[in-house]
Amino acid sequence: MPRILGIDPGIRHTGYGVVDAEGPLHRRVIAGVLSPDPKASLPDRLLHLDRELSLILEDIRPDFCAFENVFYHKNPKSMMILGQAQAACILAVARADLPAAFYAPREIKMAITGQGSAGKEQVRFMVERILGESFEGHPLDETDALAVAICHASRREALELGAGA
Amino acid sequence: MPRILGIDPGIRHTGYGVVDAEGPLHRRVIAGVLSPDPKASLPDRLLHLDRELSLILEDIRPDFCAFENVFYHKNPKSMMILGQAQAACILAVARADLPAAFYAPREIKMAITGQGSAGKEQVRFMVERILGESFEGHPLDETDALAVAICHASRREALELGAGA
Repeated sequence: MPRILGIDPGIRHTGYGVVDAEGPLHRRVIAGVLSPDPKASLPDRLLHLDRELSLILEDIRPDFCAFENVFYHKNPKSMMILGQAQAACILAVARADLPAAFYAPREIKMAITGQGSAGKEQVRFMVERILGESFEGHPLDETDALAVAICHASRREALELGAGA
Repeated sequence: MPRILGIDPGIRHTGYGVVDAEGPLHRRVIAGVLSPDPKASLPDRLLHLDRELSLILEDIRPDFCAFENVFYHKNPKSMMILGQAQAACILAVARADLPAAFYAPREIKMAITGQGSAGKEQVRFMVERILGESFEGHPLDETDALAVAICHASRREALELGAGA
């Protein structure tokens, strides 16, 4: 059963979620949020993301990795900081020699709820249905990351079915 | 004699320059440009910056590191890509346990030429005078990175003089 790591990067909170998925079967392996100390320096915060993610990769050994990729934010400074957090996560995955895919928020919402403009709560509702468990009280970054993993699982299978047809 | 690595990060071209500096004495140790294959994937390009810079750090063993830090670009996508390249360089430096300083382009130009609005050619002219060698035919990213290192050298000394007074 392919194991997929979904990542929703952010310098304050990086959500991660690992799912084993095959056809309609989806099982959560692990999910959580990395929150580097906001008082630490930028290098230390990036190092925190890089190291924690590397430990998770070593421990959980996923087969694929997928990122939520935000392409637009009207504040250029926010885009720069997001780019920095993304790079820390991308590097941890690249060093583990894992293939990485990137999805826009709209694509992820579409794959999970059938609606590109779905809200975070609606995404969580569908993630709970697909994984058959409740995430009440868990941060939304966690269900967002699981959504990225589920999105990649369905895209991969669609591609494979297409290739086999 | 303190050894300082200056970095001017970019996903297409990352300039680096190492200077030994004490008082009015400045000596170039090494300088160059890292240019990841533009056809490679984003993870591979970031990995290239990270690895090459790590090799330089291991080889040259600087005492301090300084970055040119651009805070504003009107294109948010460009800011994100710059943030990614920055993070790859910052992580290589952080993993080597080196202290890092960040300078705005204006601060660097001011420290080198006495004028915050100086052009790249003017910065190069002063870098050549300070280091006592010509960089004709070398890419501007290289002299820009040397300028970052020289800027940090003068700032550090100013701080130390201030602390000792």
